Amino acid sequence: MSDNDISRRRLLGAAGAAGATGLVLGAAGGAAAYAAADDTPTALTAVGSTGIAFHGTHQPGITDPLQSHGHLIAFDLTAGAGRKEAAALMRRWSALAAELMAGRTAPDGDTGIALDAGPSSLTVTFGFGRTFFDRTSLVAQRPRELDPLPPFSSEHLDPGRSGGDLWVQIGADDALVAFHALRAIQKAAGEAARVRWQMNGFNRSPGATARPMTARNLMGQVDGTRNPKPSEPDFQQRIFVPDESGHGWMAGGSYAVVRRIRMLLDDWEKLSLKKQEQVIGRRKADGAPLTGGSETTELALDATGPDGKLVIPDNAHARISAPEQNGGAAMLRRPFSFHDGIGPDGTPDAGLLFICWQADPLRGFVPVQRKLDRGDALSPFIRHEASGLFAVPGGPRKGEYVGQRLLEA
Amino acid sequence: MSDNDISRRRLLGAAGAAGATGLVLGAAGGAAAYAAADDTPTALTAVGSTGIAFHGTHQPGITDPLQSHGHLIAFDLTAGAGRKEAAALMRRWSALAAELMAGRTAPDGDTGIALDAGPSSLTVTFGFGRTFFDRTSLVAQRPRELDPLPPFSSEHLDPGRSGGDLWVQIGADDALVAFHALRAIQKAAGEAARVRWQMNGFNRSPGATARPMTARNLMGQVDGTRNPKPSEPDFQQRIFVPDESGHGWMAGGSYAVVRRIRMLLDDWEKLSLKKQEQVIGRRKADGAPLTGGSETTELALDATGPDGKLVIPDNAHARISAPEQNGGAAMLRRPFSFHDGIGPDGTPDAGLLFICWQADPLRGFVPVQRKLDRGDALSPFIRHEASGLFAVPGGPRKGEYVGQRLLEA
Repeated sequence: MSDNDISRRRLLGAAGAAGATGLVLGAAGGAAAYAAADDTPTALTAVGSTGIAFHGTHQPGITDPLQSHGHLIAFDLTAGAGRKEAAALMRRWSALAAELMAGRTAPDGDTGIALDAGPSSLTVTFGFGRTFFDRTSLVAQRPRELDPLPPFSSEHLDPGRSGGDLWVQIGADDALVAFHALRAIQKAAGEAARVRWQMNGFNRSPGATARPMTARNLMGQVDGTRNPKPSEPDFQQRIFVPDESGHGWMAGGSYAVVRRIRMLLDDWEKLSLKKQEQVIGRRKADGAPLTGGSETTELALDATGPDGKLVIPDNAHARISAPEQNGGAAMLRRPFSFHDGIGPDGTPDAGLLFICWQADPLRGFVPVQRKLDRGDALSPFIRHEASGLFAVPGGPRKGEYVGQRLLEA
Repeated sequence: MSDNDISRRRLLGAAGAAGATGLVLGAAGGAAAYAAADDTPTALTAVGSTGIAFHGTHQPGITDPLQSHGHLIAFDLTAGAGRKEAAALMRRWSALAAELMAGRTAPDGDTGIALDAGPSSLTVTFGFGRTFFDRTSLVAQRPRELDPLPPFSSEHLDPGRSGGDLWVQIGADDALVAFHALRAIQKAAGEAARVRWQMNGFNRSPGATARPMTARNLMGQVDGTRNPKPSEPDFQQRIFVPDESGHGWMAGGSYAVVRRIRMLLDDWEKLSLKKQEQVIGRRKADGAPLTGGSETTELALDATGPDGKLVIPDNAHARISAPEQNGGAAMLRRPFSFHDGIGPDGTPDAGLLFICWQADPLRGFVPVQRKLDRGDALSPFIRHEASGLFAVPGGPRKGEYVGQRLLEA
C-alpha cells in the first residue's frame, strides 16, 4: 500500500484551549448541540497536541501521565526467527514508534486511522519476556530479575493470556491514535512474530475531573495514592536499573509486572460503603485513610477506635500494601482499567490491567503481593487471571533501537 | 449500600481551560512529565463540565455530538414482569438517568466510580424492541415501524447479540462516567429485566483533532459526511416522529437501527490506498469525492476520466449510499467504533457499532441497506454480526418518565 497521497497529519497549530468551562447545560437534542455536523472546526487542545519523545534515558510510558486509552500486546517470535530477525524487528518497531509518537504516519504504508489527530500523548514501550532469551540464544544475558514470579493463591492464570517473548504497551489520549499504533505495530511484526495475546484498557479522560489525577478504579476506589513520586530522593533507584547493574544493556531500564486483575464487581457492589471502606482502609469519597486527613495523609496504623479495635483493620488492603509494612518495597503502579463486556458467567469481565514498574521485582511486586496473598481483605473480590514479567530496556539514543545494546552485544 | 458519606460530585468550578496548546514535546520519562503524581490538581475542562439535559422534546444521545465512550445494552423483561413492572422500571431508570446526566450520584446507592468527575456529556437513551409489546400486552400500540427488518445477504446475525425487549444507549466523554452509568442502569433493572447483550464503543477524544468532527472509522475512512444537518429544512421530519403520527406516544421519538458491523481489517489493509479509495469513492486523506473538491463537495456522479470510465465507480460505497441515489432516503448516523481484541479466528474483532436514527426505518435504513446489499464494493470487507431495531420515544417532560405515554395510556 502506498501512502503517497497521505500527507503528514495536519497539526493545525494552537487553535486555542478547550472552549468554555463550567457546567454547561445544553438544550437536549437542540440543533445547536449538533453544530459539529455543520462542519464547525473543533479546537485542537493539549489533549491532541501533546507529544512525548521516543528517545531518551528511559523508554516512554513509564513515568508519563496515565493516558485515557491503552493496548497491551504480547508477541512470540515465529519458528524461523532468531536473534537476527529479532534485531531487525526491534529496529523496525523503534523507527515506527518514533514516527507515530511524533504524530507522523507509519513509514511503510499507513492505515490512515489516525489522520488529522495530533500525537495525543502516544507512547509505545517495548519489553522482553523470559522466553525471548531462549529464542535468541541470549540466555547468558538474561537477568535473574526475569526469573518466574512465585505462585500466589489468589491467581487463576490463563497461560494463553500470560507471558510472551515480546511485550508492547501502547498508550494515548485518543482511541483512534492508540488503535492506529496497535495496527501499525502488528503489521510491522511481519513474519518475525505472531500475536500471543492482546488486551485493551482505559483511564479517565484529561479534563473530566479537577481532582489530582490519582486514578479511580472500577471499584470506585482512589487507586495509586502511595505511588512513589519523582520528587522523592530514591525514586530513580527504585524504578530504574542503575548503570552499574550486572547487565549493562538494562541500564536505565525497568521491569514491568503485568497482571490482568478481574474485579468481582457484582459481589463488591453488594457490600455497604462502610464495609468497602474497611476492606480498603481508606474513605471512598476522597481516598483519605480511615484514621483521618486527606488522601496524602499518612496512615495511622496503630490508631484504635472507642471499641479498642484498630481503625484501619488488620487485613485492610491499604495497611498490607503500605511500603512501611513491606520493608520499603515500592513499585510505580501505572495501570489501565479494562472492561470486555459480560463474561460467560454473566458477570462483568472488568477490572484492572495492573502494570507496575520497578528496578527489581523481588524488591517491588513480589514481597507486596506475597503479603497481600496471605491476608488481604480485598482478595475475595479480585482474581488474577493473567500475568507477565518483562525486561524493558532503557530508552534508545537517536539512531539507536530499543534493545540494541542486548541484541548487538 | 448507603451513600451518606458520598457527597455530590465535586464540580470544582471553571478551573481554566486545558493548559498549553501547540505541539509539546516533553522530556521522555522526565520527572516533570509525571507531575500529576505529586498531586498537582488537574483542570476540569469542558470535557468534564459539559452536561446535557435529560428532559426535553427528544431524548438525549440522538443529535448530541458523538461522545468518546459508549455502551449499548439490551435487556429482556424477566418471566414475571409485565406492563406494571416495565412502567416501574422506566420510572426508576428515568429518575436515575436524570441524576447521572446532571453529574450527581445514583439515588439508590452509588458505586462511586464516577466520583470527582463532571457530567462529561453523559447521555442515557432508552428504546423498546418489538418483543417489548408482546411482553407488556401492548401489541395494539406497536408501530409498524418495528416490523422486523428484511434479511440482507451481507449479514451473519448472532441472535444472542441481536434484538431485546429494552435497549439503553449510554455515551460520555469519560470512560469512568460511562461505566458508572452502565453499572447503575444494570443495578436499577433489579428483578424486572435481565441483560441480553452488551457492547462497548468509542469515538475520537474531544481536542485530539482540529478537523470538523466528522468521525473517522477504523478503516481510516472519513465517515458520516452526508449526515443530514440540523440546519436543513427537512431534518426534523426525517429524524423524528411527528406529533400527528398514528401512535401519539412516539411523538418526538425516533427509530434506532443498531448493527454490529465487523470490519475485516486484515483484508482491508492489504488493499492499496488507491483501491481503498475506489471502494469508497472518496479520498482517504480528507473525505473529498474522487471527483474533487473538499469533504462537503457534492459527488459528481456522472464524471468520467480520460479512460471514459466513471471516476466514482459504479459500485463505490459513497455512490450507492448517496441520498440522491435512494429517493432522498436519509438517516442520522451516530456510531461508535468497537474493538474487542482479537477474535477466535485470529483477526481483529473490531468495527463499527452502527447506530442510525430516522422517523421511519422503511424510508431510512432499509432502502439504503437494500441497495448496498446488491452491489456495494465495501461488502467484502464488512460483516453485519448483530442487529436491533428500537422505538425510542420522545423525551420526557419534567416529572414524567420515558415511555409513560405508552405505558400509562
